[in-house]
Amino acid sequence: MNNILVLQSDFGLADGAVAAMLGVAHEISKDLRIHNLTHDITPYNIWEASYRLFQTCKYWPEGTVFVSVVDPGVGSARKSVVAKTSSGQYIVTPDNGTLTHMKKFIGIDAVREIEESVHRRKDSEHSHTFHGRDVYAYTGAKLAANEINFEDVGNELSVDRIIENKTGDVIKTETSISGCIDILDVRFGSLWTNISSDDFRSVGFKHGHRIEVLIKNGPTVVYNNRIIYDKSFDAVYVGEQIIYTNSLMRTAVAINQGNFARAYSIGTGIHWTIEFKKIE
Amino acid sequence: MNNILVLQSDFGLADGAVAAMLGVAHEISKDLRIHNLTHDITPYNIWEASYRLFQTCKYWPEGTVFVSVVDPGVGSARKSVVAKTSSGQYIVTPDNGTLTHMKKFIGIDAVREIEESVHRRKDSEHSHTFHGRDVYAYTGAKLAANEINFEDVGNELSVDRIIENKTGDVIKTETSISGCIDILDVRFGSLWTNISSDDFRSVGFKHGHRIEVLIKNGPTVVYNNRIIYDKSFDAVYVGEQIIYTNSLMRTAVAINQGNFARAYSIGTGIHWTIEFKKIE
Amino acid sequence: MNNILVLQSDFGLADGAVAAMLGVAHEISKDLRIHNLTHDITPYNIWEASYRLFQTCKYWPEGTVFVSVVDPGVGSARKSVVAKTSSGQYIVTPDNGTLTHMKKFIGIDAVREIEESVHRRKDSEHSHTFHGRDVYAYTGAKLAANEINFEDVGNELSVDRIIENKTGDVIKTETSISGCIDILDVRFGSLWTNISSDDFRSVGFKHGHRIEVLIKNGPTVVYNNRIIYDKSFDAVYVGEQIIYTNSLMRTAVAINQGNFARAYSIGTGIHWTIEFKKIE
Repeated sequence: MNNILVLQSDFGLADGAVAAMLGVAHEISKDLRIHNLTHDITPYNIWEASYRLFQTCKYWPEGTVFVSVVDPGVGSARKSVVAKTSSGQYIVTPDNGTLTHMKKFIGIDAVREIEESVHRRKDSEHSHTFHGRDVYAYTGAKLAANEINFEDVGNELSVDRIIENKTGDVIKTETSISGCIDILDVRFGSLWTNISSDDFRSVGFKHGHRIEVLIKNGPTVVYNNRIIYDKSFDAVYVGEQIIYTNSLMRTAVAINQGNFARAYSIGTGIHWTIEFKKIE
Repeated sequence: MNNILVLQSDFGLADGAVAAMLGVAHEISKDLRIHNLTHDITPYNIWEASYRLFQTCKYWPEGTVFVSVVDPGVGSARKSVVAKTSSGQYIVTPDNGTLTHMKKFIGIDAVREIEESVHRRKDSEHSHTFHGRDVYAYTGAKLAANEINFEDVGNELSVDRIIENKTGDVIKTETSISGCIDILDVRFGSLWTNISSDDFRSVGFKHGHRIEVLIKNGPTVVYNNRIIYDKSFDAVYVGEQIIYTNSLMRTAVAINQGNFARAYSIGTGIHWTIEFKKIE
Repeated sequence: MNNILVLQSDFGLADGAVAAMLGVAHEISKDLRIHNLTHDITPYNIWEASYRLFQTCKYWPEGTVFVSVVDPGVGSARKSVVAKTSSGQYIVTPDNGTLTHMKKFIGIDAVREIEESVHRRKDSEHSHTFHGRDVYAYTGAKLAANEINFEDVGNELSVDRIIENKTGDVIKTETSISGCIDILDVRFGSLWTNISSDDFRSVGFKHGHRIEVLIKNGPTVVYNNRIIYDKSFDAVYVGEQIIYTNSLMRTAVAINQGNFARAYSIGTGIHWTIEFKKIE
């Protein structure tokens, strides 16, 4: 490990929850470099937690330890695990679907169950609602600080048995491609789809083309119009809409200097589908 | 001191106030490890600042220096102090009630007044509205970096004279216990009361019991219903209400995966009372 | 450089954008000390980014490297630059007006264009919408970690050619002074004007004076009343208005423990003018 610990949760930064986790980690080692991925995950939203790990893990050095705590099942029989990713990082998390995107798009090499009788903050056995502090930050800090190895965490589990959420399908025809709206570029309201740039271009779409876009929330049409596909925002007017390839090399839709999601009240998830069709 | 500096304020993170404090601290020493407790304290709310220190201080290593700046009286005669807590940390703060919970529930061993003629950022004598930057971050950083000792801060004051806010009472009968709603678990809207788990259980309440709950804002009844008391959220349905012991070993009320405070427009403070009664 | 890297953007902290930048920086060097100035710049608001740098840079040690990414023109021909300030810091940013206040009020000694064919994250050449990660955090981290020198960044540009936004004028008469509302002290809603304390006092205003204040949004009068000028909030009642000198030694207007901007729906920019007039 490399002494870097990265924390994610749905706790927000307004109360003391994250600060308690930071303190517990520094009790293990004053030399840790501790950063926040985000603590603004929508409360209880495991999908977002899973996506944000996928979005960012790969930019961190090998040996970085992530602690992700979106844990609506705290106190239940859900397992506490540490996953070793194919990109060389470690993720400490409840096994509740948080590893979905990492497993599917990056790869997980091994996973171990945290042996809580060993890896739990002293005197915390009567606390049943804050494993983020008592188990996850504590174990993540020990790993990051090399006080324990991955092998010391607990018994190895089968990677096949990791809990996974359903992700959306991508369906291609000769004249169209459809997928779902995975997540938003929150501040700018851009729609990030699950359609890779390569898949998108394989339909024959090229920069400068106008493309028909159909967005549905379940069966309900929310948006249906034509949008230009281009390289970057500079290609369109301020306030104009654009289809582009985002920073994860996936297809995205935005309003240049506006907020597409807010303009049309668009949400995220596998029931929010988006289709791109050639104009005859 | 251990080189760790933890900052709290009601400044928010949207403008440059906190960044100015960070810069001032690093001017003292590049080796400090600086963290944020929270900067989202409700503006001017000394009670919240006091509670968040109590909630988190004890999880940090001995020698950690906290700087807490909720300072509506900046520029007045209110004193600037450094408190040494019984848990071995230091708190740099205006003496305006911010030390209330630490003194009552953790203990303060000694307190010294900051001698501002010595411990003030150079050339800041014409600035009268930002002691957070000019005095508190500056002094806290010097302490954390061991450039000064606690004794160098200034004259010792009597711990008895620390300004304290009134905290709520806990009243027990044979069939009930009542207290106040101290604060929220902000993101999840859970009510954190001032009633310890031990006091609560001493009434005879046990996991699995249904208990009558009466919440009042001053004289006005805001909520009156029966709620199950159990160990963790796993014990109830999603959307069901639960009484539980929170991560500070105090009695709390929540909606599993919901937001109790928002559901019933519940606030905090000693005039927000909560009573738990046995059902005959 | 001193190994300190300070990040600013309009990305917010709710998604993974900032975490990706942090990761890229730590890939360059695990020893960097990375802080956030703010990531809550109003989306696309270059003026705010420029002001926040001016507000905070000078409090940081010499050799600190700032990365500021408010970049509505990402992917266009706007230049990517590193500026060396007269206060001894470095700012990595798109050259789009972000350097306005630093150049005008602190001074910029030299500026170099980032040679993107050299200073760009490996394998990022197909990413056209996130230079914050691929170019700015990457280059800023290399500078801060002393992997490159300022001279290695790329060709020197003329400081005269830096893109500057228009800033507001200050106009003095025998009985009045007027300027504009540059920015807010966000959490407290105080109005920070572009009128220095020295200029303000040169009209003859003294502590204890009541002064007529006229605030306009373009041609429309938004506020016109009399306010006391004094040293700090302590001089007025809770809820009373006050003219004071802010922490940047400029003239400001606030409601003690209230929110002036929210009370009167006041915004910022050079079209938001404010005039202080002697009362006959």
